[in-house]
Amino acid sequence: MNSLELLAVDGLPEVQPGDDLGELISARAELKAADVLVVAQKVVSKSEGKMRDLASVVAGNDAHRIAKQLIALPDPRLVQVILDESVRVLRSERVLITETRHGFVCANSGVDQSNTGQPDVVTLLPDDPDASARRIRQRIREGHGFDVGVIVSDTFGRPWRLGIVNVALGVAGLPALIDLRGTPDDFGREMHATVLAVADDLASAAGLVMRKTARTPVVVIRGVELEGDGSGHDLIRPAAEDVFR
Amino acid sequence: MNSLELLAVDGLPEVQPGDDLGELISARAELKAADVLVVAQKVVSKSEGKMRDLASVVAGNDAHRIAKQLIALPDPRLVQVILDESVRVLRSERVLITETRHGFVCANSGVDQSNTGQPDVVTLLPDDPDASARRIRQRIREGHGFDVGVIVSDTFGRPWRLGIVNVALGVAGLPALIDLRGTPDDFGREMHATVLAVADDLASAAGLVMRKTARTPVVVIRGVELEGDGSGHDLIRPAAEDVFR
Repeated sequence: MNSLELLAVDGLPEVQPGDDLGELISARAELKAADVLVVAQKVVSKSEGKMRDLASVVAGNDAHRIAKQLIALPDPRLVQVILDESVRVLRSERVLITETRHGFVCANSGVDQSNTGQPDVVTLLPDDPDASARRIRQRIREGHGFDVGVIVSDTFGRPWRLGIVNVALGVAGLPALIDLRGTPDDFGREMHATVLAVADDLASAAGLVMRKTARTPVVVIRGVELEGDGSGHDLIRPAAEDVFR
Repeated sequence: MNSLELLAVDGLPEVQPGDDLGELISARAELKAADVLVVAQKVVSKSEGKMRDLASVVAGNDAHRIAKQLIALPDPRLVQVILDESVRVLRSERVLITETRHGFVCANSGVDQSNTGQPDVVTLLPDDPDASARRIRQRIREGHGFDVGVIVSDTFGRPWRLGIVNVALGVAGLPALIDLRGTPDDFGREMHATVLAVADDLASAAGLVMRKTARTPVVVIRGVELEGDGSGHDLIRPAAEDVFR
């Protein structure tokens, strides 16, 4: 992995519910075996119809209360959708930080109002981002005759640090973590606590090419050279071990 | 930014205190104007002599107490160095999470035992990572006649997610954040809360090439195309706005 190349996949049409996203990507991406494809959650969710129209949402008491408290979330219907997507609220102070049904801890359960094209329609996270990644991988195999790694990514904020970074929600055909514990450092000393979140690093790198407004939701990363098969769940710190949950 | 290239800088010697790191890099890196150099904190700290020999450290009561509690940090002298580097302890349960003098919130104040070559010698974070980045940038300008961006990076763990990722501590000659708030999305809708931590994304991308054991502490990123000049401090969430501090 002495060099890496990142290439935007151009020419994807506006994705609609029911579209075969893997096929759309396979038809446009110039791929080589063992490339890693990073695909933005937004287009995955759209293709899977994971959207809700706020016009059909009736907000409950909790949603009304939170919407009154949080300047950034004035619409109680949007708060209701966020609560529907969560199993637990970690903070509703300045921001709404929730744990999603998948186990992700993030702002607003990953519910997003931008780039849907309709003011009252929001996207939700895919039900099973690993499965979404596997389906895209399968289509690439059918279209190209070889395998690639696939990451479904989204942008998350972080405690302690400002700005959002792209992270991996779903993973297929590559490891999510590389565990270097027990391997020696350059001087033969055993390295402690060194587990690399390689799928998050890949998502982050792809985020540089995606940018928010550039309509490039799919990025090819070439030269990764990783063996193994992981899951987006590998990247979720178990609640029992998480001193900040 | 439709494509990006990442290249390891090979052939760096083992860095020693007093070495002119910028000159060492300038002599070996094949650079073009506007490239971004990501340099691992470890070699920056070594060149700046930011190391401590545990043999000369006398642990106090707090350090002894914490070392007894934390299986991962059994050496009270190491705990003492970590406390010396911190202004506040956020958690000393399973792990030691501190706020450093710079304002970074991270494990063990960034104090690191690996890759120093001497079992009792640890590296500390640079005093001023932005200044470290600026010095390297200045040497590149002298050696190559043009400017590059420079990021001094380290690997940090995260709450909620497993594994470490590379992040930016110091920045020179490029922005740390890109603020897209108020700009329209692809459908003309204003994007809220979209500030991209671009220096962290760049550090993370470089982390893929650095890997821990491969002795490639310097990576060139080509094709970034960013205007502006930021600071590693831009990436630190102010304590007053941080609901997890």
